[in-house]
Amino acid sequence: MSEDEVNFDWNRRKRIGIGEAVLAQGKSREQLYAIVEAAVRRNASVLFTRLDDQMAAGLPEIDYHAPSRTGVLGSFPAHRIKSSVAIVTAGTSDAPAAWEAQRTLAFNGHEATLIFDVGVAGLHRLLARLEEIERHNVVIAVAGMDAALASVLAGQVSRPVIGVPTSTGYGAAREGDTALSSMLASCAAGLSVVNIDNGFGAACAALRILNT
Amino acid sequence: MSEDEVNFDWNRRKRIGIGEAVLAQGKSREQLYAIVEAAVRRNASVLFTRLDDQMAAGLPEIDYHAPSRTGVLGSFPAHRIKSSVAIVTAGTSDAPAAWEAQRTLAFNGHEATLIFDVGVAGLHRLLARLEEIERHNVVIAVAGMDAALASVLAGQVSRPVIGVPTSTGYGAAREGDTALSSMLASCAAGLSVVNIDNGFGAACAALRILNT
Amino acid sequence: MSEDEVNFDWNRRKRIGIGEAVLAQGKSREQLYAIVEAAVRRNASVLFTRLDDQMAAGLPEIDYHAPSRTGVLGSFPAHRIKSSVAIVTAGTSDAPAAWEAQRTLAFNGHEATLIFDVGVAGLHRLLARLEEIERHNVVIAVAGMDAALASVLAGQVSRPVIGVPTSTGYGAAREGDTALSSMLASCAAGLSVVNIDNGFGAACAALRILNT
Amino acid sequence: MSEDEVNFDWNRRKRIGIGEAVLAQGKSREQLYAIVEAAVRRNASVLFTRLDDQMAAGLPEIDYHAPSRTGVLGSFPAHRIKSSVAIVTAGTSDAPAAWEAQRTLAFNGHEATLIFDVGVAGLHRLLARLEEIERHNVVIAVAGMDAALASVLAGQVSRPVIGVPTSTGYGAAREGDTALSSMLASCAAGLSVVNIDNGFGAACAALRILNT
Amino acid sequence: MSEDEVNFDWNRRKRIGIGEAVLAQGKSREQLYAIVEAAVRRNASVLFTRLDDQMAAGLPEIDYHAPSRTGVLGSFPAHRIKSSVAIVTAGTSDAPAAWEAQRTLAFNGHEATLIFDVGVAGLHRLLARLEEIERHNVVIAVAGMDAALASVLAGQVSRPVIGVPTSTGYGAAREGDTALSSMLASCAAGLSVVNIDNGFGAACAALRILNT
Amino acid sequence: MSEDEVNFDWNRRKRIGIGEAVLAQGKSREQLYAIVEAAVRRNASVLFTRLDDQMAAGLPEIDYHAPSRTGVLGSFPAHRIKSSVAIVTAGTSDAPAAWEAQRTLAFNGHEATLIFDVGVAGLHRLLARLEEIERHNVVIAVAGMDAALASVLAGQVSRPVIGVPTSTGYGAAREGDTALSSMLASCAAGLSVVNIDNGFGAACAALRILNT
Amino acid sequence: MSEDEVNFDWNRRKRIGIGEAVLAQGKSREQLYAIVEAAVRRNASVLFTRLDDQMAAGLPEIDYHAPSRTGVLGSFPAHRIKSSVAIVTAGTSDAPAAWEAQRTLAFNGHEATLIFDVGVAGLHRLLARLEEIERHNVVIAVAGMDAALASVLAGQVSRPVIGVPTSTGYGAAREGDTALSSMLASCAAGLSVVNIDNGFGAACAALRILNT
Amino acid sequence: MSEDEVNFDWNRRKRIGIGEAVLAQGKSREQLYAIVEAAVRRNASVLFTRLDDQMAAGLPEIDYHAPSRTGVLGSFPAHRIKSSVAIVTAGTSDAPAAWEAQRTLAFNGHEATLIFDVGVAGLHRLLARLEEIERHNVVIAVAGMDAALASVLAGQVSRPVIGVPTSTGYGAAREGDTALSSMLASCAAGLSVVNIDNGFGAACAALRILNT
Ligand SMILES: Nc1ncnc2c1ncn2[C@@H]1O[C@H](COP(=O)(O)O)[C@@H](O)[C@H]1O
Ligand SMILES: Nc1ncnc2c1ncn2[C@@H]1O[C@H](COP(=O)(O)O)[C@@H](O)[C@H]1O
Ligand SMILES: Nc1ncnc2c1ncn2[C@@H]1O[C@H](COP(=O)(O)O)[C@@H](O)[C@H]1O
Ligand SMILES: Nc1ncnc2c1ncn2[C@@H]1O[C@H](COP(=O)(O)O)[C@@H](O)[C@H]1O
Ligand SMILES: [Mg+2]
Ligand SMILES: [Mg+2]
Ligand SMILES: [Mg+2]
Ligand SMILES: [Mg+2]
Ligand SMILES: [Mg+2]
Ligand SMILES: [Mg+2]
Ligand SMILES: [Mg+2]
Ligand SMILES: [Mg+2]
Repeated sequence: MSEDEVNFDWNRRKRIGIGEAVLAQGKSREQLYAIVEAAVRRNASVLFTRLDDQMAAGLPEIDYHAPSRTGVLGSFPAHRIKSSVAIVTAGTSDAPAAWEAQRTLAFNGHEATLIFDVGVAGLHRLLARLEEIERHNVVIAVAGMDAALASVLAGQVSRPVIGVPTSTGYGAAREGDTALSSMLASCAAGLSVVNIDNGFGAACAALRILNT
Repeated sequence: MSEDEVNFDWNRRKRIGIGEAVLAQGKSREQLYAIVEAAVRRNASVLFTRLDDQMAAGLPEIDYHAPSRTGVLGSFPAHRIKSSVAIVTAGTSDAPAAWEAQRTLAFNGHEATLIFDVGVAGLHRLLARLEEIERHNVVIAVAGMDAALASVLAGQVSRPVIGVPTSTGYGAAREGDTALSSMLASCAAGLSVVNIDNGFGAACAALRILNT
Repeated sequence: MSEDEVNFDWNRRKRIGIGEAVLAQGKSREQLYAIVEAAVRRNASVLFTRLDDQMAAGLPEIDYHAPSRTGVLGSFPAHRIKSSVAIVTAGTSDAPAAWEAQRTLAFNGHEATLIFDVGVAGLHRLLARLEEIERHNVVIAVAGMDAALASVLAGQVSRPVIGVPTSTGYGAAREGDTALSSMLASCAAGLSVVNIDNGFGAACAALRILNT
Repeated sequence: MSEDEVNFDWNRRKRIGIGEAVLAQGKSREQLYAIVEAAVRRNASVLFTRLDDQMAAGLPEIDYHAPSRTGVLGSFPAHRIKSSVAIVTAGTSDAPAAWEAQRTLAFNGHEATLIFDVGVAGLHRLLARLEEIERHNVVIAVAGMDAALASVLAGQVSRPVIGVPTSTGYGAAREGDTALSSMLASCAAGLSVVNIDNGFGAACAALRILNT
Repeated sequence: MSEDEVNFDWNRRKRIGIGEAVLAQGKSREQLYAIVEAAVRRNASVLFTRLDDQMAAGLPEIDYHAPSRTGVLGSFPAHRIKSSVAIVTAGTSDAPAAWEAQRTLAFNGHEATLIFDVGVAGLHRLLARLEEIERHNVVIAVAGMDAALASVLAGQVSRPVIGVPTSTGYGAAREGDTALSSMLASCAAGLSVVNIDNGFGAACAALRILNT
Repeated sequence: MSEDEVNFDWNRRKRIGIGEAVLAQGKSREQLYAIVEAAVRRNASVLFTRLDDQMAAGLPEIDYHAPSRTGVLGSFPAHRIKSSVAIVTAGTSDAPAAWEAQRTLAFNGHEATLIFDVGVAGLHRLLARLEEIERHNVVIAVAGMDAALASVLAGQVSRPVIGVPTSTGYGAAREGDTALSSMLASCAAGLSVVNIDNGFGAACAALRILNT
Repeated sequence: MSEDEVNFDWNRRKRIGIGEAVLAQGKSREQLYAIVEAAVRRNASVLFTRLDDQMAAGLPEIDYHAPSRTGVLGSFPAHRIKSSVAIVTAGTSDAPAAWEAQRTLAFNGHEATLIFDVGVAGLHRLLARLEEIERHNVVIAVAGMDAALASVLAGQVSRPVIGVPTSTGYGAAREGDTALSSMLASCAAGLSVVNIDNGFGAACAALRILNT
Repeated sequence: MSEDEVNFDWNRRKRIGIGEAVLAQGKSREQLYAIVEAAVRRNASVLFTRLDDQMAAGLPEIDYHAPSRTGVLGSFPAHRIKSSVAIVTAGTSDAPAAWEAQRTLAFNGHEATLIFDVGVAGLHRLLARLEEIERHNVVIAVAGMDAALASVLAGQVSRPVIGVPTSTGYGAAREGDTALSSMLASCAAGLSVVNIDNGFGAACAALRILNT
């Protein structure tokens, strides 16, 4: 009976250019220990996402960053490519997914510019930053509820725009499903989308572009 | 056995200030004939909504308007109050609900300004009309898919804004449900909403405001 | 790297006539502190909604009101316009959204009449109050489950009626979705609707009417 | 290989007191022919529901009633018990389900009183009939969209009230799902419910009561 | 400003034959106190449903019954009508809704026979009790997950059968929605249904029958 | 530019023991022609499923069977293994999926016993056949609406039972979703399920068992 | 009044070849005690599933296994049939359902091979094990989120493949519903499916095959 | 009253690098005529998508391509950039969305390689093309039902992968929703997604990348 619950995909970075990452949420304490141990044994760097602070507290090997709920085992790349990605959020509550994207990019050697709380309810805040945003190679638009920010942004900039719908709000926000469908049905052409709250996925999509 | 299928609410206009209307969709030819007959007998004016042209063709007493799918039995008010309502649409496909609102307002004695196809994918189209829109007493925002127009509009004008989500688009547009939820979860304060494609309802909500 | 998570829309009151409000739910303690600090620095008044008592306890600058889960930083307007809004609830459990509407109106200078627990299961309770309700300029109908109150009310009064579906009940009440769809599909003409439990939004929609 | 697609439950009337009925919708022409043939062979009476007129045209043995989309093979009971059931509808469009209930009762030997188009948008129409309704042993409330009629009715009469949600309306009416959930989550105590548009089922539930 | 959050429907028992009941879930401690106080003042009996034990502990005036999560303020009827209702459950986990029905009947003067855990996975358990069940005037069928019990039961007994879908199970059980839809779409004729876990509602529907 | 729209998986039968099948629904006339041509060129046998009669009429090479909506290109196996599978349906309307399963088995060399219309509303019909069903190696249970047949069957026989939920019924039957969820949440242990109306898939699952 | 909440189906193993099992989740402490007592009285072996560790701690008669959340009362079969089932998981987080399947098989006398964490994101991990998997009589594929593992596996092996969708992931994973629908709509022929996280059900389906 | 229903966003290509496109579906014949006329007047090129052949037949100015349901008014760019995009489909039925992407790219000056029918049910078909796919700058993965192709592909290639879920299949395929959620919840990192059947959107997202 073969019963080893963990089986890393160690050659992922070589194959697709993105370092190994572990979705901590939904794993038991025992499983996370086994993962850390396996990585330490191989002297590998691993990014942990959706890691809550209680879990992180029991894993001293991990460098934890609370606002993004990410942890890094091993070291960040010594050198980071400057500001090729703009991460833009609609509201303050969208910050965690934005930080998750920023940390994933950093873990893979890229800096990012963070522009928070420029949702369309007060449109001037966004319009004032459009030129700055356009100067980046990739734009990540993080927004919940109506997610109107992503449509306005994709209508104004020419860069690849990756939407991250977030689970902010209540009622008809439907835990991010409204923002998700709203981005998918956007009137702006060529907005592509990742899972709800998935700052990690947006960063990986950006990395695929930056690596090409 | 009492079996009269139609039972009008004749004192509605007196009670709530809005004329009798009949939702034609879902009624049989026989039922529509009976309704017309009853109204003619009382010499009453009635607005028919969601009336398709085949149905209308069989009802010569009715003055039919195809783009709005409405018909009027009897006469419009002799005098209309000028341009107190702005009806704004995001795309060309949203026109039917806008026309339905316009016709309902006309049937109840109010003119409206129609501003079509100013969705946020090309933001400049909307920004150019904001001042004009603000000069009206009530704004009706008609938009499908992401419905971002309604959020941007409600964030920029101070007037009552009534959102009409439309069933345009496909896939994640979910026959108007995405636009509906998006408007309900809007980041702009004080946007109120009616049913999908319900230009009639938006006009009635506007009438309640104008009558107060 | 620009990383300031909070970016107020300070000229909102000037632009649309409604004071700045913060949705506390979904924000971290650190973010709420930053918001309070920024507002205090500008000497600005801010309304906090969906603020639970634990959060409120850590923010002594805020004047907290438990039944509505709202807090006010700064001062209420010195003078309030008298009783232009009637807030009517179907059941006792709908009270929090009603209080949220009342507090939002007060924060923006308007009094409201609160009429609780007059749901249609005991119709006489509502019929007894209809005349009184009709004397207000705007009616807010707060109801969960079948939300029949909103339909009956909008069928009887001529005033603008804004429905607030609530998340009371269980099972087929679907956390407010049934009340929401029920209000949207109401047989009464011109009922407009805001998000589930969104007393704040209903009050803002009322303010747009009262300010016009 | 046994391949006879039809296998009647002939002793149903004896077992549960309700005559055999066939849901025509979803059956092929060949299957309906086989069913008619089998029934004729046994000299049995059968009620067909949801039978469209094209189907009915090909089945001359069946006595077809278009408004209810029902057909009867064989004979109705010679004697009908008088007016023990009141069937009440909210709107004109709800008539088909009401007729289906009426025909099912007739097929099983019971008369019914039909009261159409007394929805709560014009409440006086219903209030005027309450006493009459209360005089029946069972009440069937047929309503779509918000289905508020059922709640108001069950709050005012003491009789068993069986709700039939209907698929009238559009958008948030969700093809009857809103009416269904609204009735299930009704604020009135002891309202029981059958499937959307299921006048047949409501009549059968009434028959179980009347037979007890 | 009228601000009394509680407004009893005191003449309900006289009007529809069912005593006043309060849905405790979703009410604050303060609201429950106010309700108890109002009832005590009037010397009225009230049934509390969905009352958790922590809430109950703070309300010593109430006679609490944990398995049904109900509490009674005041007294039960001195005399109970014998065993007119059979309450049948599919599994052990369905017991709470069954008890809620039993307590509601008792509060309104009727005894009930409880038959637990006779789901169709072991069909013989149910077949052995069919004759006994048929001897009651009303049958309440309590079942979750596939809710097959209700269909089998309604196919075998001639009595009114009221289905109570329950929220037992996980995954595709969808917190009772599968059982609910399954009962509504039952192949058995004349099964009527109440809300998920709503033993109270089923009992009230039974009372309407028993009172007729 | 490589643009050949069809690319067969010719070694499927060798790899997994099931012959090549084509889902006709959703393919254009041109695509179906190309498929037939490619198969004829290789002298291969192919099963077409969900092929409507209009499509079939244009493809004379195919041997069409209307009740199952299947067509066969090439020849059936000369020899069929006798009656190892029992296919049981709840109602007459479930026949198409049953026939699809029967044809798929025949195409792959296995006979099946078809037992129609033994749903649990008239339980005796099923009980009378249980012993016969148990004598087969695999049981396919085809049922829509509440799908109670599958639960009762899996509770009584020891054989592998594969459920095929069907899209019969209306309203809460939700085009087969209720039957699907009901089977997945079945109280009977070890019932496995395939897609709605997927007689083809159930037959393939049976073939995997029979081939082992 | 009969009030015994527990009523075992003791002859299940004899009837369908699978030992008695109890779904602990959703049962009260009192009910679980009563079940243990009844089983001990009869000297019967019982498998408890979805038993959390707090519940288990109060039931010392039960042999608890935390990773699978199962407990066994009584003894395992002395002899186990060797490795007839391969249980394959996509990720580490899918382990609990895999363990539940393994324990259910062991309780009924069968060993299983566990192959963890071979999801298709790193396809080589799965391809390396295909031959080994094919050597088993039944394959259980455990996967959440996109559940692509099940499709790839069923496309490559000829054995019966039973899919267990899991509730891992977040957002669009929809607590297992995406994996469930994905498996049901799989492009691979003859994959059958059980409820979300239902390792127990998959094992029972395997037992029905192994027992035939 | 301003009533011009069409209002082009003519400077879109200059602003975001993508030519004007019109979603034909949902527009009336009159509206399409007006759009063609306006474009002809300005001598502008326009791409029409989701244009059915009946509509196209009435618009002789448009160059129609049936498999993609697109039409072009005006001319394609004289020069096309060679094969920078690979468009890969899982099945033959996914071809229309693939062709829509190909046409959109051509309209904007880019060639594409089309690789059809390489779904994972016959994995070898895809593995044989992986190296070829990797040589392109962007990959568009078109797949319905389980959409497993997109996950496998994104796990094997390093390029930006844009998923287009399609509405092929039936039942649990849920008109593309399963494929959509499956891609969003993919176990492969950095897959981004557009709306169901939205080949146009995927091409636009690719253009944003190619233009950067
Ligand atoms: N397009 C529409 N959408 C929503 N409600 C409508 C529409 N047209 C008419 N109504 C209302 O629907 C009610 C339907 O009642 P009835 O004609 O009795 O079925 C009318 O009284 C109108 O107030
Ligand atoms: N468990 C229950 N399920 C459904 N309705 C209930 C339940 N318990 C009480 N009710 C009813 O719900 C109404 C709620 O009103 P309130 O107490 O004003 O919130 C009461 O009048 C009861 O008729
Ligand atoms: N009725 C059906 N339901 C589900 N899958 C089917 C059906 N008929 C054929 N298939 C499978 O669907 C796949 C579709 O592939 P294609 O023909 O390339 O679109 C085939 O390989 C079959 O295994
Ligand atoms: N197939 C398509 N899917 C999604 N969006 C599209 C499609 N075709 C065109 N569009 C976009 O939809 C917008 C619709 O605008 P309109 O033509 O004003 O209705 C256009 O500006 C296009 O960018
Ligand atoms: Mg903000
Ligand atoms: Mg446009
Ligand atoms: Mg109350
Ligand atoms: Mg009417
Ligand atoms: Mg049990
Ligand atoms: Mg039948
Ligand atoms: Mg893994
Ligand atoms: Mg294929």
